[in-house]
Amino acid sequence: VRLSRDEALHRLRVARVARLATVSADGQPHLVPVTFAIRDEVIVIAVDHKPKSTRNLKRLSNIQANPRVSVLADEYNEDWTQLWWARADGTAEISGRSDPLLAEKYQQYKENPPQGPFIRIHITTVTGWTYT
Amino acid sequence: VRLSRDEALHRLRVARVARLATVSADGQPHLVPVTFAIRDEVIVIAVDHKPKSTRNLKRLSNIQANPRVSVLADEYNEDWTQLWWARADGTAEISGRSDPLLAEKYQQYKENPPQGPFIRIHITTVTGWTYT
Repeated sequence: VRLSRDEALHRLRVARVARLATVSADGQPHLVPVTFAIRDEVIVIAVDHKPKSTRNLKRLSNIQANPRVSVLADEYNEDWTQLWWARADGTAEISGRSDPLLAEKYQQYKENPPQGPFIRIHITTVTGWTYT
Repeated sequence: VRLSRDEALHRLRVARVARLATVSADGQPHLVPVTFAIRDEVIVIAVDHKPKSTRNLKRLSNIQANPRVSVLADEYNEDWTQLWWARADGTAEISGRSDPLLAEKYQQYKENPPQGPFIRIHITTVTGWTYT
């Protein structure tokens, strides 16, 4: 069953984690879980202090090659009638500018403000689904 | 911190839900949560009885246009030192053949065997990460 755009955007906004899909120049999708905040219709994701094997992140080089991205939040439950997901498709840019909403949403960012860079995704489409 | 290939594949195998990323012919990524099973190095996903708005699914048309896909399982925790994810990249094909592992893993498939079609992903790369 389709969720309304407003309901899907709300569920995405309050989700604690989402998954970011980017695509390489040669068409290989790349997936990574992300913490994020949504201001108006822009999703903000920080390259933060969580340990990474490199600063030269695939998600950033992919966005430079192809700005089209997708972000998904979902909840699993063994009772499948409780399943839902919410997804935003959009156009990403890499930015040096953070957003105070990140620290409002996550205590970890209050204690350890992310230095960035930041990914800002301008949402074009929001869709959502629930089993019942 | 990188997980070993074996450890990442194990975490993926036992995860109850993952997210499948496919890419359209014009380079737009598409994300959807999936239930799945892994036999050897092949991920099997069923188009199942969960309600869908259409049988003409974007994930299937995307795979026909571009077989490169990515599958991600992750666990969120407010204690970020507990975070982990595991990801498999691979080549997908659409198949009429199910796999008994689906019903072994999910009671719902025992009661309601999926009719398909099925997506079979031949894993090429497995990566994984844990905070600590």
